[in-house]
Amino acid sequence: MDSIRWEGNALHLLDQRLLPSDTVWRTIDTWQAAADAIADMVVRGAPAIAITAAYGLALAVRTGADRAAAVEGLRSARPTAVNLRWALDRLESVADKHVESEAVKIHAEDRQVCQSLGRWGAPLMGGGVMTICNTGSLATGGHGTALGMIRSAIGEGRRVHVYALETRPYLQGARLTAYECMHDRIPVTLVADGMAGALMAAGRIDSVVVGCDRVAANGDTANKIGTYGLAVLARHHSIPFYVAMPMSTLDASCPDGTGIAIEHRPPDELRSIRGVNIAPDDANVWNPAFDVTPAELISAWITERGHWTPTRL
Amino acid sequence: MDSIRWEGNALHLLDQRLLPSDTVWRTIDTWQAAADAIADMVVRGAPAIAITAAYGLALAVRTGADRAAAVEGLRSARPTAVNLRWALDRLESVADKHVESEAVKIHAEDRQVCQSLGRWGAPLMGGGVMTICNTGSLATGGHGTALGMIRSAIGEGRRVHVYALETRPYLQGARLTAYECMHDRIPVTLVADGMAGALMAAGRIDSVVVGCDRVAANGDTANKIGTYGLAVLARHHSIPFYVAMPMSTLDASCPDGTGIAIEHRPPDELRSIRGVNIAPDDANVWNPAFDVTPAELISAWITERGHWTPTRL
Repeated sequence: MDSIRWEGNALHLLDQRLLPSDTVWRTIDTWQAAADAIADMVVRGAPAIAITAAYGLALAVRTGADRAAAVEGLRSARPTAVNLRWALDRLESVADKHVESEAVKIHAEDRQVCQSLGRWGAPLMGGGVMTICNTGSLATGGHGTALGMIRSAIGEGRRVHVYALETRPYLQGARLTAYECMHDRIPVTLVADGMAGALMAAGRIDSVVVGCDRVAANGDTANKIGTYGLAVLARHHSIPFYVAMPMSTLDASCPDGTGIAIEHRPPDELRSIRGVNIAPDDANVWNPAFDVTPAELISAWITERGHWTPTRL
Repeated sequence: MDSIRWEGNALHLLDQRLLPSDTVWRTIDTWQAAADAIADMVVRGAPAIAITAAYGLALAVRTGADRAAAVEGLRSARPTAVNLRWALDRLESVADKHVESEAVKIHAEDRQVCQSLGRWGAPLMGGGVMTICNTGSLATGGHGTALGMIRSAIGEGRRVHVYALETRPYLQGARLTAYECMHDRIPVTLVADGMAGALMAAGRIDSVVVGCDRVAANGDTANKIGTYGLAVLARHHSIPFYVAMPMSTLDASCPDGTGIAIEHRPPDELRSIRGVNIAPDDANVWNPAFDVTPAELISAWITERGHWTPTRL
């Protein structure tokens, strides 16, 4: 299962907003279209948007667009995930004629990073594993980060049952993780976000594993809204809480979580679901896309190079 | 705003499944229809289903149905809320010709109970108050329990801002609480269930107040799924956690929470929202309607008679 395909003159993105009911690929042939696809969540997941931004810059070079404007436009498409910035920084000093091949390299490397991360993380996985959002093939160049750890564990013969939180408001768990697990024959049970505590109290959860959008130098970790509450619940139940963290997600320039900009999404994402109103049209809404989990609630950060240790400030 | 009207020969129920977009009243003229309305959640909220069951028994008497069968059918319509059982027990020894007037009395008393509970609870309310599910006029004979405490506090001139958790899967918070608060000019912000922790960490929540479906003798409290996690989060943030508890919700025969039967609802409630699929059709689902919050996480139980103290076993 993949969601990003590069064909030399255009980028093809699986429209993740329509899964699992419809499989629609979008053709992206300008950097602006790539930026819009990121902002509108055609593609989501920190590694996947980094790859998309890299191809976006390749499209800017190919179409003769103003390269500085493209970097700025892509960089600001979504503010929280640092991988996007990391990919654009990496391309900054690359000559025009090499941008495309470097983007292809970023894409291929991401698959390798996920595979390595999965190998490091696999021994930690077993029994009931709770996760939030989607951190699988659809969120990355392939394999996945947190879901990649689970995939690797199953590949090594470990028994894992995934408890996928549906992840309101955008329902990445229900729409993407349940779908991806079923597609790949990973045992999965879908639960609403508010059920996490009751599942832990019932003794069905052995560990929690999540992805991340930005990790500060001290280990404070920004990830999908709901992650912080999950970490508090895990601590209350003495359940280990793991972060799957490609090193590109580290923002060494950010000393702690207070420096991480949190994106707020449009209120209608909460007031309606795929065109169906579920709340008064004019209801006040608070809709941050991410929250920050303090380092002290995190048992371990697993990267492609092994366990990472925060810089204690 | 009311949701239950008795007109002598029939019961009229506001179909809460269709709010806030459609206002449809259902006419109920047999006890079976009353039981179905409870099971199918046309009416919900522990006090409201108790009132509906009482009127259901009045309809059984009026239509000459087998009274014992009606009691049994109404009692088993939903298993967790004890108020339903309480109302039927109260009617057990009432002669046929007095059942209707006793049902009307149960309905009227519930409004009084909510008003009294609100007066006891009002001094505890102020600032940002988080709540789950719907515990307002729509869930009761009027005024509400947890939302009744907030309504009373505002009536006394206190400043309260409600943070309504949307309450997946049935969305009572989004569909009913946001609607009821806006209708009654109570300041309200709608948030997804997974946002509770981040809101508390942001310092915006001064207290949490919830209703209840059954309270065991030791104080363990069954309420809408998600309540337990909320109590853990409140404890972590040193935020008081209050239960609004009509005395009819006490199950003195139940020593602790392990004795409370938890209803599991159909999987499609989680896989689709008003006919729109949001997950694979055949996804495994865990869908309990309630969870149990241990007494030690609860700061106070507020009843119509004042603060209640659990029996320590």
